[in-house]
Amino acid sequence: MATLCRPEVAVPEFIITREDTLKLAERLHARNPQLKLVLRLINGTGVQKRHIVQPLEQALSHPGLEIRNRIYEREAKRRVPPVIRQALENAELTARDIDAIIFVSCTGFMMPSMTAHLINAMGFRHDTRQIPMAQLGCAAGAAAINRAHDFCAAHPQANALIVACEFCSLCYQPTDDDVGSLLSDGLFGDAVGAVVVRGSGGTGIRLERNEAYLIPDTEEWISYAVKDTGFHFRLDKRVPGTMKPLAPVMRRLVASHGWDVGNLDFYIVHAGGPRILNDLCKYLEVPQEAFRYSRATLTEYGNIASAVVLDSLGRLFADRPMPDGARGVIAGFGPGITAEMAVGSWVNDHGQSRGGGRSSAAA
Amino acid sequence: MATLCRPEVAVPEFIITREDTLKLAERLHARNPQLKLVLRLINGTGVQKRHIVQPLEQALSHPGLEIRNRIYEREAKRRVPPVIRQALENAELTARDIDAIIFVSCTGFMMPSMTAHLINAMGFRHDTRQIPMAQLGCAAGAAAINRAHDFCAAHPQANALIVACEFCSLCYQPTDDDVGSLLSDGLFGDAVGAVVVRGSGGTGIRLERNEAYLIPDTEEWISYAVKDTGFHFRLDKRVPGTMKPLAPVMRRLVASHGWDVGNLDFYIVHAGGPRILNDLCKYLEVPQEAFRYSRATLTEYGNIASAVVLDSLGRLFADRPMPDGARGVIAGFGPGITAEMAVGSWVNDHGQSRGGGRSSAAA
Repeated sequence: MATLCRPEVAVPEFIITREDTLKLAERLHARNPQLKLVLRLINGTGVQKRHIVQPLEQALSHPGLEIRNRIYEREAKRRVPPVIRQALENAELTARDIDAIIFVSCTGFMMPSMTAHLINAMGFRHDTRQIPMAQLGCAAGAAAINRAHDFCAAHPQANALIVACEFCSLCYQPTDDDVGSLLSDGLFGDAVGAVVVRGSGGTGIRLERNEAYLIPDTEEWISYAVKDTGFHFRLDKRVPGTMKPLAPVMRRLVASHGWDVGNLDFYIVHAGGPRILNDLCKYLEVPQEAFRYSRATLTEYGNIASAVVLDSLGRLFADRPMPDGARGVIAGFGPGITAEMAVGSWVNDHGQSRGGGRSSAAA
Repeated sequence: MATLCRPEVAVPEFIITREDTLKLAERLHARNPQLKLVLRLINGTGVQKRHIVQPLEQALSHPGLEIRNRIYEREAKRRVPPVIRQALENAELTARDIDAIIFVSCTGFMMPSMTAHLINAMGFRHDTRQIPMAQLGCAAGAAAINRAHDFCAAHPQANALIVACEFCSLCYQPTDDDVGSLLSDGLFGDAVGAVVVRGSGGTGIRLERNEAYLIPDTEEWISYAVKDTGFHFRLDKRVPGTMKPLAPVMRRLVASHGWDVGNLDFYIVHAGGPRILNDLCKYLEVPQEAFRYSRATLTEYGNIASAVVLDSLGRLFADRPMPDGARGVIAGFGPGITAEMAVGSWVNDHGQSRGGGRSSAAA
């Protein structure tokens, strides 16, 4: 059985507060006829602050895709390893115990993948599988959990490491001034997250079932326009309404597992924005309190893309001891519109798992 | 058991011959002091012709990353579906029978991934898993086979569709004139491949074991420099020598399966260039003939990146009936330097598999 262990998430040292964001929008887009709407939308996100990899003035300038991507690479190589080290420690494993690294990131591009660098730099075995995914955006955190679940099911006793590296501030496009772009400028933040899925042993969420769903004909709703200046995020105003079609899918998935989605012990969902959380409460018929971890991530860090689910999960671990068998759901949402969902129950390791041992991940 | 069925590969209608390539190199790089070396290297590849998605004159101009990527998207949406349709037919399945789409491509970038478009446009189920991978380059074809194998192992009875979409000509960079770039300009071609891995039934290679290997500290040998003009392919002159460290890894993997790598019934390997094939013959102690499928792909299409292994596999299917139990190996090589390897044996479906049925891919 695959167990999703305690994640580690780190945010960069440079901070932009809600007040900074609002002042900036007023200064940079004073003549934008939709400024008032934008300010109202940013206020409505509930985001209090975000963390970014560079000082604000640097983050606001666009030095070109080439230099941007070099910053991405430099910051990834600097900021990812300590987060992985803590995630391994949380799982009571070492780099040598890991059989696959699933690296998700939609805010920069490297070939070879960061996985090659991590294997060389951090002492992972040279037969570690590399599974990099770039095009799933905010859904990638939950997708990575589901692919790690599959990997552990295919290779019993194997362990998978998930890394989510999102430097959304490096996709800031100063010349984009439509409402969706300006809202995004006030919503997204930077973070690095990592978590281990253990093939046996470990304390955390035992992954029991996973599913994906693509809302028909919504490809244009969340997308990148790829330009000479890099990735330009496009956000349609219909996106906040997507929980209406997705809630029944989540309900059905949880029901197929024999549980009632309105009555689970924990909910870890992607906090794309406040409307998503509010609508999920309404459609799943659960109290606001159910999404407190996701809401805390949104408030303190903004939308940190694929790292949201890892951060919300970390807050669940930090909150209080969970009893064996506590039931829950994990869901990520992103471009497509794609939902990646997992159902599982809490398991407390009662002491036998330390070490994990070298697994045999050849099927 | 997961069976790798008969693939389909299509190459575009625009052709560039070896003579065209050599004349072009002479015309465009007349003053390059290394022109003679480049011509000799291009001649040495053995590539007779390549197929590209645009007429040559258009392919030679660089209209900027934005337009390039739009061409990528347009051509992918146009050229991928018919190849998928044939791959499904080869596997005697329909789109509704597919549980996961693994889409590999390193020559363009789309978010959402092409998988979302394919699901909407081709009648795949809306709960089909999307597994897009962009950063594994030429190793991605074999990586996709291995991840499909894992997926089918995790979800018994599930079927996975692999798509490799490589328009290498859209990464042509007119201003790059180092030896590695000019050699690459004469080596890479465009192609689209697709193949189904069936969870049960089907004729083809029963996937039995897979493994990955990263050659230590070779990250810089094959890479993209990401610039305002897109992906710039960087090829180190040490790359042709990589079979020396990789051959023993392949030998060990095959031995762990109880077989002798020097005495298998088929070999499907990435034909990155002639040296790779020649060295593999030498180090694995097999006759040149063993790599005839890979060499035919290289000669007729050039290096078509992640699609090479699918095309070589197609040639194996076309060549002659294989007996049940024929043993073989599949290997892809790419940036990292990463090798993705699979071991399996031939299985002929004796008639019971038609239809395949709706699988239950929730684990």
